[in-house]
Amino acid sequence: MIKSLAVDDAGRIIARASRPTEVHAGQDRVVRNLAAAVEDVTRQLEQAGAVMGDTMTKSIGVGVPGVLNVEKGLVVASPNFPRWEGFPLRARLEAAIGRPVLIENDANAAAVGEQWQGAAVGLKDFLFITLGTGVGGGIVLDGRLWRGPGGRAGEFGHVKVMAEGGEPCGCGSRGCLERYANASALERYVLDALPGGTKSDLQRLAYDRPDAVDPAMIAQAAQAGDAAARAAYQRFAVYLGLGIANVVNLLDLRHFILGGGVSESFDLFAPRLRDEAAARIYGVAIDEIHILKARCGNEAGALGMAYLALEKS
Amino acid sequence: MIKSLAVDDAGRIIARASRPTEVHAGQDRVVRNLAAAVEDVTRQLEQAGAVMGDTMTKSIGVGVPGVLNVEKGLVVASPNFPRWEGFPLRARLEAAIGRPVLIENDANAAAVGEQWQGAAVGLKDFLFITLGTGVGGGIVLDGRLWRGPGGRAGEFGHVKVMAEGGEPCGCGSRGCLERYANASALERYVLDALPGGTKSDLQRLAYDRPDAVDPAMIAQAAQAGDAAARAAYQRFAVYLGLGIANVVNLLDLRHFILGGGVSESFDLFAPRLRDEAAARIYGVAIDEIHILKARCGNEAGALGMAYLALEKS
Repeated sequence: MIKSLAVDDAGRIIARASRPTEVHAGQDRVVRNLAAAVEDVTRQLEQAGAVMGDTMTKSIGVGVPGVLNVEKGLVVASPNFPRWEGFPLRARLEAAIGRPVLIENDANAAAVGEQWQGAAVGLKDFLFITLGTGVGGGIVLDGRLWRGPGGRAGEFGHVKVMAEGGEPCGCGSRGCLERYANASALERYVLDALPGGTKSDLQRLAYDRPDAVDPAMIAQAAQAGDAAARAAYQRFAVYLGLGIANVVNLLDLRHFILGGGVSESFDLFAPRLRDEAAARIYGVAIDEIHILKARCGNEAGALGMAYLALEKS
Repeated sequence: MIKSLAVDDAGRIIARASRPTEVHAGQDRVVRNLAAAVEDVTRQLEQAGAVMGDTMTKSIGVGVPGVLNVEKGLVVASPNFPRWEGFPLRARLEAAIGRPVLIENDANAAAVGEQWQGAAVGLKDFLFITLGTGVGGGIVLDGRLWRGPGGRAGEFGHVKVMAEGGEPCGCGSRGCLERYANASALERYVLDALPGGTKSDLQRLAYDRPDAVDPAMIAQAAQAGDAAARAAYQRFAVYLGLGIANVVNLLDLRHFILGGGVSESFDLFAPRLRDEAAARIYGVAIDEIHILKARCGNEAGALGMAYLALEKS
């Protein structure tokens, strides 16, 4: 789904639209859909009589899942856009929209959004983590997005949590954190737990239709006290805790903002997550580490892109 | 061992001395030894008729293994200095030496040394890794040492390479990279391989006196083609490759400088290290990653501290 926002310079959302992405229909269609989503909000603004021109940013910011070459405006690698490697997304969007375009990794964009309007307001150094179908990251150091020398930093989901073996990942490697701390991992943990005899209301359902065990159902069951569902969140917390501790040990970051669909269940895994991180950090007390739930929901990325476009203007 | 250097502003070493550390003899003795090592080089400079005063930096830089609170001048945690937690090292050294003192983590200092005079000259973004009894790291981002908000960044050796279980580490946790990529890990890998029947000249020695299998001997045996010794370096490379790939994925760093005793055997593990990193990086080609041997040897740390002291002057 493409989400499109128009935002004023105080970060207030003044128009929003959404369009299907339709990746299966090919690159031309995706570019057209993106341009149409921009057109949708532009039309809303015109109808509302917003003063155009001076008050509009010249640039449009587009957040994209995957690794990008931001400087050249290319898609480098994205599990969401298979075989788009090398696609000149920025140039194609500029041609379709008729305005300058910024592209940025979606988790990087969400980090900026949370820093502008959400849980990271006032923070100079933090890692934003998105927990959904994939696991992504956006690193802010000294107040600025850390893109790295090649603009590809923040692939927190592809940090390995085991040296040998491990679940195969869409990136072509194995043992990536993403495979242990995304929404599907929760389903796997529930299905793993059931044959062992863990008492669970999900039991009969999983037996009849294992495909029907989805993250929303697991969250609901865990809230209701279901043992297998609660155990799944505990196991999830082990891996995410490891990932967070490793970033503490490497970069001395103190603030972690968790966004994405799975973060809606923050309370189900946060206490264990804290314990797991505490067991693995070195030279820092756990009281100095702050793991917070994101506040901008699934609009964090679009907000961040608006900020980056404003900044560029 | 305390190593003490005097360096001119072009980075040339103009005096050097060394003193035993004598940690077992207590904090007062260590402070006295450090002050004496500074006195040794000062006396050499005076005897050589070096012009004192204007040309001397006011500050003395001291690199220390372990986690420090650089701002307050305290030791936070150091396996090399057990029970020194909270020790006001900087204040004690300033009292003993009579001049301002800078303290810095030794791997951070070595990173600066390599950047000034070694393998990292001209690099803006890199990770320096020290491979010895311990494994340490120093991160340079955008040309500057990245200390993190609390001054404790760079604990690369305490990044975990497994989520559950793992070798216990001196830091109190388990599964730290340090336990899999330090000098003792090589010994463990050799001793592990032998009962399995790996043909090795180390066999009889290990059977008679397993304690006698040390890193220098393993390096020598591997150079001579010994199978068990070569296998040990391959296994070592798996874990170090994982650690490097994780830093690529997280920070998009492209340059890694390997120092410390084990890096002397760089050629024995570098090809496999490259392959292991290649298998785990995402969105970056291995040709863009440069893994280099450090050039300043065991004086990198002292050189880096000299640079930091010059910079402060």
